[in-house]
Amino acid sequence: MTKATSGHIRRFDSQQDDFRQQLDALLAWEGVSDTQVNDTVLKIIADVRARGDDALLEYTNRFDRMAVEQMAELRIERPALEAAYQRLSPKLQQALEISVERVRAYHQHQKQESWQYTDASGTVLGQRITPLDRVGVYVPGGLAPLASSVVMTAVTAKVAGVPEVIMAHPTPDGNVSDFVLAAAWLSGVDQVFTIGGAQAVAALAYGTATVPAVDKVVGPGNIYVATAKRHVFGQVGIDMVAGPSEILVVCDGKTDPDWIAMDLFSQAEHDADAQAILLCPDAEYLDAVEASIVRLLPTLERVDIARRSLADRGALIKVQSLEEAIEWVNRIAPEHLELSVDQPEQYLDRIRHAGAIFMGRHTSEALGDYVAGPNHVLPTSGTARFSSPLGVYDFQKKSSIIHCTPASASELGESAGPLARGELLTAHARSAEYRIKE
Amino acid sequence: MTKATSGHIRRFDSQQDDFRQQLDALLAWEGVSDTQVNDTVLKIIADVRARGDDALLEYTNRFDRMAVEQMAELRIERPALEAAYQRLSPKLQQALEISVERVRAYHQHQKQESWQYTDASGTVLGQRITPLDRVGVYVPGGLAPLASSVVMTAVTAKVAGVPEVIMAHPTPDGNVSDFVLAAAWLSGVDQVFTIGGAQAVAALAYGTATVPAVDKVVGPGNIYVATAKRHVFGQVGIDMVAGPSEILVVCDGKTDPDWIAMDLFSQAEHDADAQAILLCPDAEYLDAVEASIVRLLPTLERVDIARRSLADRGALIKVQSLEEAIEWVNRIAPEHLELSVDQPEQYLDRIRHAGAIFMGRHTSEALGDYVAGPNHVLPTSGTARFSSPLGVYDFQKKSSIIHCTPASASELGESAGPLARGELLTAHARSAEYRIKE
Repeated sequence: MTKATSGHIRRFDSQQDDFRQQLDALLAWEGVSDTQVNDTVLKIIADVRARGDDALLEYTNRFDRMAVEQMAELRIERPALEAAYQRLSPKLQQALEISVERVRAYHQHQKQESWQYTDASGTVLGQRITPLDRVGVYVPGGLAPLASSVVMTAVTAKVAGVPEVIMAHPTPDGNVSDFVLAAAWLSGVDQVFTIGGAQAVAALAYGTATVPAVDKVVGPGNIYVATAKRHVFGQVGIDMVAGPSEILVVCDGKTDPDWIAMDLFSQAEHDADAQAILLCPDAEYLDAVEASIVRLLPTLERVDIARRSLADRGALIKVQSLEEAIEWVNRIAPEHLELSVDQPEQYLDRIRHAGAIFMGRHTSEALGDYVAGPNHVLPTSGTARFSSPLGVYDFQKKSSIIHCTPASASELGESAGPLARGELLTAHARSAEYRIKE
Repeated sequence: MTKATSGHIRRFDSQQDDFRQQLDALLAWEGVSDTQVNDTVLKIIADVRARGDDALLEYTNRFDRMAVEQMAELRIERPALEAAYQRLSPKLQQALEISVERVRAYHQHQKQESWQYTDASGTVLGQRITPLDRVGVYVPGGLAPLASSVVMTAVTAKVAGVPEVIMAHPTPDGNVSDFVLAAAWLSGVDQVFTIGGAQAVAALAYGTATVPAVDKVVGPGNIYVATAKRHVFGQVGIDMVAGPSEILVVCDGKTDPDWIAMDLFSQAEHDADAQAILLCPDAEYLDAVEASIVRLLPTLERVDIARRSLADRGALIKVQSLEEAIEWVNRIAPEHLELSVDQPEQYLDRIRHAGAIFMGRHTSEALGDYVAGPNHVLPTSGTARFSSPLGVYDFQKKSSIIHCTPASASELGESAGPLARGELLTAHARSAEYRIKE
């Protein structure tokens, strides 16, 4: 039984008989690329591999309604990025600097160091950690200038020690955002190509005469970008293929309901597929949040998107207790979790799956999107069960180190031999046995 | 110009004009699933999702030539695993125990701990690290009983703290390997299902009435398994989709040529697509290794496979110096790198890309495959440029922690507001601004 008092957002009660099915239906999301998208993307990738810059120019002119004749027109180097920064208002310059500085400081804590040890057999064992050589960050173009996506991806790669960060950022109709370019300057991006879509992903993965091939492609994008990333996976590394953004708020009913309504809107305004859910043991408080939603929704700039998102994918859910709410948190494995309660630390040990946890009434998710420090590229659609925020670890890789002495090679060979023979791999066995001392 | 003195393996010289093209051709590998394989796999996945255990029984009876009627016949629990261990020879029992113990000890060093700190603004920031709930390890069936694959995947998951490890292992014609089951017992596998192929991957990813849904599927498999893993990626995590195994040996010409020949064979015997390459500055030594290959090849049990692998994908390459060899190592980014030289440490800082590095003349790759301790699931086909050995980090995930005080939320809101407005996301801005103190 679904209560929909205002028609703006669905209401559920965890005690209703069909709650689990209703929740499953609410959460269901499969990001499938249809055959048409797949075929288009495969054709574009093949074309960029075969014709390089020529294909890139053609697709960019066609899809982004540009009229460029050579790749030099699609490249922006650091002096031009700095000039864009200089054109920003001092207020925005300062906010961007604070964001870059805080993101850098947080991610320094994620940096891993190589290690090695000598075991009882005399064998040196270890793990060498090295940065990737070159990384591509994709930053969508179009209406919203996603400067924060630049910061979150490029600063993290630079903290990892990646020498070269290449940014792909389409500029439909030639509209360039100073805000985005300024973010690229402050984040240490080495060069920007104003290319986008599957053609940009293909160029980054395979390289062209002008665009250098990278080792990993990260960052958000539309269905063509996401599909292209799936196809080039293996040739290069990729981050997660993200689904729509989500927020799950757990509230004890004591936060200003306007705050919670606005926190839900801050997800819902992203796009119509975004998901905003509130869990609370207090039915009257849910009524109050719903009243806030009804009152505040018309005041939003992106009212139409937020309205559709809340109506199609949002929910206010009455639970029996905060303890029960935490169980649903683990079922949902949300991208963003707000614990809008007293002493949120007490619940932390029981939370197994969440991309980022915003603790207490004052920590709004929007702070984490821009300036708190942790990454805003987070696992969506329940993938927090098995994956992590984008981090320095995504831009470092490891090599195992094994160094036997003659004596330890002889000792280990005594075990490796029988195991290899057990697997019927006798050349393995003989290779180990050659090193056994008589 | 390609020298092929014996016809067993190609010879190149890095000084020949077309060397770079020849090397590119030698390394080229694209693991594509053709349309027939893709369609078959998609059909199987859809069928297992729709019909669960019934589909699983049907496919298992058909593909593995079994005649089982209920899922209980496809499940092996821990007492039966222990019984299998008891049937092994004491020598094999001991070798397996040493392997498990050494793999466990090494991987303990990879375990990461949660951390947090309070910054100057009073905000608590951190990263919580938790194990995955449940993991599926796939272990191929058929001729070679890959006990070491069980150890490398299951022990690593258990060190990470994964409470439940489910193993899928097909037993064509009902042939069960005590060696594999014993490895599962010692490695702490919680239960085994004797299922394989795309149907096993689908069952692990989506769950059936009998097979519990897991959060990640790891381990090697044939083209159907690899294709199914690609398709369920997103529903669950997966490790790399591996290509054929490879070894790159760098030798100064002072190691017994029979040892090096056998090290090359130990890759080549895996399958005809496996790749074994030797780089050496000493042409006469390459002649000696080739003579060893010619002499020893007929003595191998898996002579036909090794012969094809060496002829189709192997190479002996004359370089100018060991320094030059290291440059080619970085171009090749090998899965396994043997540095069969004096004082191999001196080259380590210049090696950027390799899955595992075997240092010195005595450290044969086979030791690493079974007992040295580091993982033998390694990035293939040049993917060491951006990925790492399977590790404890693959079975742990991270959640960001952000906890603002009222004062720090107010301070951060002053920056988050303008940034969100710069991105035209005004609900984000207002959500942050609500927390700014007057």
